[in-house]
Amino acid sequence: MNPFGAIFVPDELAGAVSDRAWVAGMLAAERALANAQVASGGVPAEAAAAIAAACEPDGYDPAALAEEGRASGTPVTPLVEALRRRVGSEDAAFVHRGATSQDILDTASMLVARDAVRLVDADLARIADACARLADEHRGTVMAARTLLQQAVPTTFGAKAAGWLAGVLDARFFLARWEPFAQLGGAAGTLAALGPDGTGVLHRYAEELGLGEPDVPWHAIRTPLAELAGVLATTAGVAAKIAGDIVLLAQTEVGEVAEGAAGGSSTMPHKANPVSAVVALACERHARASCGVLFESLVAEHERPAGAWHAEWHALTNALAATGGAVSAVARSLEGLRVDAARMRANVVPETLSEAERFGLHPASPDEYVGSVEVFIDRALARYHRR
Amino acid sequence: MNPFGAIFVPDELAGAVSDRAWVAGMLAAERALANAQVASGGVPAEAAAAIAAACEPDGYDPAALAEEGRASGTPVTPLVEALRRRVGSEDAAFVHRGATSQDILDTASMLVARDAVRLVDADLARIADACARLADEHRGTVMAARTLLQQAVPTTFGAKAAGWLAGVLDARFFLARWEPFAQLGGAAGTLAALGPDGTGVLHRYAEELGLGEPDVPWHAIRTPLAELAGVLATTAGVAAKIAGDIVLLAQTEVGEVAEGAAGGSSTMPHKANPVSAVVALACERHARASCGVLFESLVAEHERPAGAWHAEWHALTNALAATGGAVSAVARSLEGLRVDAARMRANVVPETLSEAERFGLHPASPDEYVGSVEVFIDRALARYHRR
Amino acid sequence: MNPFGAIFVPDELAGAVSDRAWVAGMLAAERALANAQVASGGVPAEAAAAIAAACEPDGYDPAALAEEGRASGTPVTPLVEALRRRVGSEDAAFVHRGATSQDILDTASMLVARDAVRLVDADLARIADACARLADEHRGTVMAARTLLQQAVPTTFGAKAAGWLAGVLDARFFLARWEPFAQLGGAAGTLAALGPDGTGVLHRYAEELGLGEPDVPWHAIRTPLAELAGVLATTAGVAAKIAGDIVLLAQTEVGEVAEGAAGGSSTMPHKANPVSAVVALACERHARASCGVLFESLVAEHERPAGAWHAEWHALTNALAATGGAVSAVARSLEGLRVDAARMRANVVPETLSEAERFGLHPASPDEYVGSVEVFIDRALARYHRR
Amino acid sequence: MNPFGAIFVPDELAGAVSDRAWVAGMLAAERALANAQVASGGVPAEAAAAIAAACEPDGYDPAALAEEGRASGTPVTPLVEALRRRVGSEDAAFVHRGATSQDILDTASMLVARDAVRLVDADLARIADACARLADEHRGTVMAARTLLQQAVPTTFGAKAAGWLAGVLDARFFLARWEPFAQLGGAAGTLAALGPDGTGVLHRYAEELGLGEPDVPWHAIRTPLAELAGVLATTAGVAAKIAGDIVLLAQTEVGEVAEGAAGGSSTMPHKANPVSAVVALACERHARASCGVLFESLVAEHERPAGAWHAEWHALTNALAATGGAVSAVARSLEGLRVDAARMRANVVPETLSEAERFGLHPASPDEYVGSVEVFIDRALARYHRR
Repeated sequence: MNPFGAIFVPDELAGAVSDRAWVAGMLAAERALANAQVASGGVPAEAAAAIAAACEPDGYDPAALAEEGRASGTPVTPLVEALRRRVGSEDAAFVHRGATSQDILDTASMLVARDAVRLVDADLARIADACARLADEHRGTVMAARTLLQQAVPTTFGAKAAGWLAGVLDARFFLARWEPFAQLGGAAGTLAALGPDGTGVLHRYAEELGLGEPDVPWHAIRTPLAELAGVLATTAGVAAKIAGDIVLLAQTEVGEVAEGAAGGSSTMPHKANPVSAVVALACERHARASCGVLFESLVAEHERPAGAWHAEWHALTNALAATGGAVSAVARSLEGLRVDAARMRANVVPETLSEAERFGLHPASPDEYVGSVEVFIDRALARYHRR
Repeated sequence: MNPFGAIFVPDELAGAVSDRAWVAGMLAAERALANAQVASGGVPAEAAAAIAAACEPDGYDPAALAEEGRASGTPVTPLVEALRRRVGSEDAAFVHRGATSQDILDTASMLVARDAVRLVDADLARIADACARLADEHRGTVMAARTLLQQAVPTTFGAKAAGWLAGVLDARFFLARWEPFAQLGGAAGTLAALGPDGTGVLHRYAEELGLGEPDVPWHAIRTPLAELAGVLATTAGVAAKIAGDIVLLAQTEVGEVAEGAAGGSSTMPHKANPVSAVVALACERHARASCGVLFESLVAEHERPAGAWHAEWHALTNALAATGGAVSAVARSLEGLRVDAARMRANVVPETLSEAERFGLHPASPDEYVGSVEVFIDRALARYHRR
Repeated sequence: MNPFGAIFVPDELAGAVSDRAWVAGMLAAERALANAQVASGGVPAEAAAAIAAACEPDGYDPAALAEEGRASGTPVTPLVEALRRRVGSEDAAFVHRGATSQDILDTASMLVARDAVRLVDADLARIADACARLADEHRGTVMAARTLLQQAVPTTFGAKAAGWLAGVLDARFFLARWEPFAQLGGAAGTLAALGPDGTGVLHRYAEELGLGEPDVPWHAIRTPLAELAGVLATTAGVAAKIAGDIVLLAQTEVGEVAEGAAGGSSTMPHKANPVSAVVALACERHARASCGVLFESLVAEHERPAGAWHAEWHALTNALAATGGAVSAVARSLEGLRVDAARMRANVVPETLSEAERFGLHPASPDEYVGSVEVFIDRALARYHRR
Repeated sequence: MNPFGAIFVPDELAGAVSDRAWVAGMLAAERALANAQVASGGVPAEAAAAIAAACEPDGYDPAALAEEGRASGTPVTPLVEALRRRVGSEDAAFVHRGATSQDILDTASMLVARDAVRLVDADLARIADACARLADEHRGTVMAARTLLQQAVPTTFGAKAAGWLAGVLDARFFLARWEPFAQLGGAAGTLAALGPDGTGVLHRYAEELGLGEPDVPWHAIRTPLAELAGVLATTAGVAAKIAGDIVLLAQTEVGEVAEGAAGGSSTMPHKANPVSAVVALACERHARASCGVLFESLVAEHERPAGAWHAEWHALTNALAATGGAVSAVARSLEGLRVDAARMRANVVPETLSEAERFGLHPASPDEYVGSVEVFIDRALARYHRR
């Protein structure tokens, strides 16, 4: 994300989706491709070893690859040329053998996504921990439930946190069941250049990379990316739901929470802006927009689309970065969150008991009209602990 | 979808997502709500019976409910009033007991979605059948694989159909694991008005409706809808991928397929437009846009959002209708598809064997350079038959 | 918009974008097409008169046209057939002479849009009136300015309303400069069937319809719709900005405004939901999503795209309806808005003067630290009155 | 755009929207802010000179500013601190006087956008030139018009290019009427810290920057960005329309055009991929998605939104980069386009004259049935030459 990406995206995640990470992923694919053909005789063992040795990301300049990639529209052509130069004349012919550019880039995209998803999930786990703690600690902290931003009936802050937790556990569940797949289809998904052992090579290739082996090449069947798009948009949204609530609770007139490391203003010393929550809200919008681009790319012409594929690289990168930005910001916000339980209780207006009166119940205080929140909190915590 | 929705959405699906279907879903929720409270004594059995009897959709005018719903911003308030009038004075007090408008509408949304998803999946199954048949019949029908819309290497039409099939099976898998959940939280997710048996009522309510019982109310935790959004956008995209290929293959200059019931032109008698595929491509855009709205609604303020929730009703309806429109159109297109195998073979240009030459292979014809397509086809068919 | 569209879309606007309105637009196009060819001799005057007489919308059933339109993928084919039947054997041959389906539908889309835009603009004018009134009345009504939802420095409610007004005047300016264009290109934009007088017919056709005459047919050059998409998304956003502020100001803890006709809750008698503002916020999301579909349709294949065009009908209808829904709801909200000036003043926290202290200013009260708001209000009002 | 942004975005444009360009814009704003206060005595002339001298972009590290900006959520706070350090103790107090972070960033965004828009427009002019040339040269080059990708009636390649030209001229017209506005409102749009000369300072500030002076601060009234969003989405779409046609015309089976510098394949030497057109199609998707984020930001809470504003920086940057990427790629594609007029003519199937026969016309060849294309071409060229 530009400009000023560091405000939005944690350094480690930025590294995981950087051009360098993509180059590393492409090189991992080229290495696995060579290794996978040793068994079938397509690539001599020594050539594979030479290729593997040359697949060291530090030896390649991502910016130069991008510049040189303009002519072909992908960075793979110059990367393969650079790799061949590095491997040297004899073995160079075995570099990239039987693959197409898309095989290498798609496989790299899955490696990049896998690494980034791990970081996203680690931050989701932090959110879950924080929510679980808040749900438990504040199970009896009465506050106003608000619908359409109007006080409705009493609830507890623990119940609110349990709701947040439920969303986060859903997101983690969705992320966990997403599987990255290797891509290897050759020029157009037939693996023709690999001869009769095509699917054997595919099998070993996927195995070496630790990626799923697809039934068929997914050059133009982009469900693995579409599933991830749905999960990332959901994850970002789940995080932004929490962020939005924090921003609202932190309003001057509400004052029920404050971020521990609230941001100052360049002009107003008194302000304690919920900066992390705000950053998360910004990130969610980018995540959602980029996931929309990924869904659009499902409509992929023939065996490799003219544009839809090329749009995925940035969309995926941005979706991962923005989702991770949202999740990490919310983790930061929650971990330092200062909860003003007294203010929560004090803010509850008497009218929140009007429903109770209508039902002939006469609670002495809002605390006696929070219904099943304990049960719901326990259910959410039970699911949290099951993980 | 307007205008001229019938061009895009099959009648049965249009009915399943109509205002009437929503009213029927709301009435089912009200009925289940009453029945679920008989065991706990909240609602007398006779009252529940009277309510159930009054929950007959034909007794309510959706258009009138919408008009009357303007004041409160939901159709539930007037529906509850109408239901109370119909139930009559004595038992009227037990109508809608302990619920909030959102409980009724959210539950209705899940019932509507469940029914519509069944129709969508049935049409997906038709597509799968057609793709499986085409994959098998045309496993050896050589055609040009095209990347960036340029002929690349040979493949077979069976391999293309196997790819389509793989996407469709993914979509069916995603749809099958989506679970609709009941919603019951009362005014703001605490079930306070239901007293100590709140979660018992929730359990019986979900059970009667055949919907999943959520751990916690999902008033403001919209992951069930977000997951569905991801699945619908994916499903529409998978269908549109096929449609796009058909439109391209049906081009005058390519002529490899034609729709059985190709559409005429109002001015040009010779034209055989691939109307069904075109309709699918239009529908996918609407499905994707509406799914974006659903993702956006994840960012839901407090215990009921001010607008995000209200936006979901149309977004969900439209996403279901448009996805179903895309899927049904592709089913229609494929079931009548005329495949011109000779033209496919004839279109293959000699240059598609240049890769083979580069690899030192000297196939006598394109038919000898289709690599592992048989294996891939068999894998896709095996998965298809496993279902 | 479905379901329960009446909650979101005013009746008159719903009528202006209804299937019937589209049919009326198509018939107006057919009538103008016949009349425009009388001068050049393409259509005998009596035939044109017969056609004009048959172009009475009440004689056609939009639902039936949609059903019958499935085969060709447009409602024009069955409409032309129905029109021919109605005109009768002799003159029937002159119906639709030289046009293609897209000419008729695109022209109808412009007529529908023109009418709907007028309604949208009328409601924008109501908003402008209300904002101007509020800006003037409350030029000195001190309240807290809020940045990131934290109180920042003092401002006045008049200044806030002046900001709203500025946005609305921008939207009206954008709407006013949008021009609807007639479409007439024949089968593929050459007007070949009309012979040498092609552009003469186009000229008279546009003139009769009161639509702009395009330099070239815009079958596949969709800038007229794209410009409108930008304007509608902006208009909806400008309205939703106001709605969002109202929802925030109406919060229980803020209480600075309330909608005159605030909506009740189905369970909580005390609630006064800002229903109109909430409805506007929901509508904006749909407007924005549909405008995105219209932008996407710019990428239109050759002389008529395969899907992009078909997607526009619903997208345009929905964008108009949703934008109009947002605008009309905000007009309603503002016209009845109850402003609690005392509460505004009382809510201002002392820290909002911390900036002043930092600048060595020592305002006795927030009222003395509202800077140039009067000037800004006067500027906005001057522009308002210039219109 | 990442990864491999150089494939998509020209270097000059990448520079114009880089973090460094944003920093330069922010420094220009700070400089103008100081200078504008000299007349009113708010800032001594020497201090303004010292500040101006320190506003040299090379003295600041954008990456460091972004890292340091995390705490406050904007890069302005650390920039102001760095600027103060550089200016030195005495005059440091006059740095950023009376402004808020948003003033500086919004003004920077307009400067960045203005520069980027100039580059975009220059490439649009190249496209217009190429289209005008093609329209004129090929006014009689008969080819098949294609609707729904089926051959319809004859047209000429000049007519197609004239249509492209019309869209490009529309986009240039839209771009030209967009006006970037200065932003200066102080902490929350009142300019209170500037005392009675607030609007005088605003006037001189805008003048020095060469930006429009807004009637009222647009902190939370984002119509200037929304208008630009509409224009950029339209511009990208207009370019992608051309790109899509080129990709389709370049298909192996059609072969009517080829890119002069067509891209090679990493495996298939024979391929001549229309790489530039493909890149444009990818870019358009990102432009559209980012413009959607900008429209969403119209819904801006109170005097500075919590997230919507922060989302704009990346959205605007990406929208400019992606639109420029699309436009520049299409310029490249068109400037080197090889047109095979003979193939165009040969591809026309006899059935394209069926409409003519139906009309009782009996053209001897397709060349005699292209209607008013000459007139349309001349009209488009006339508009082109009027500029």
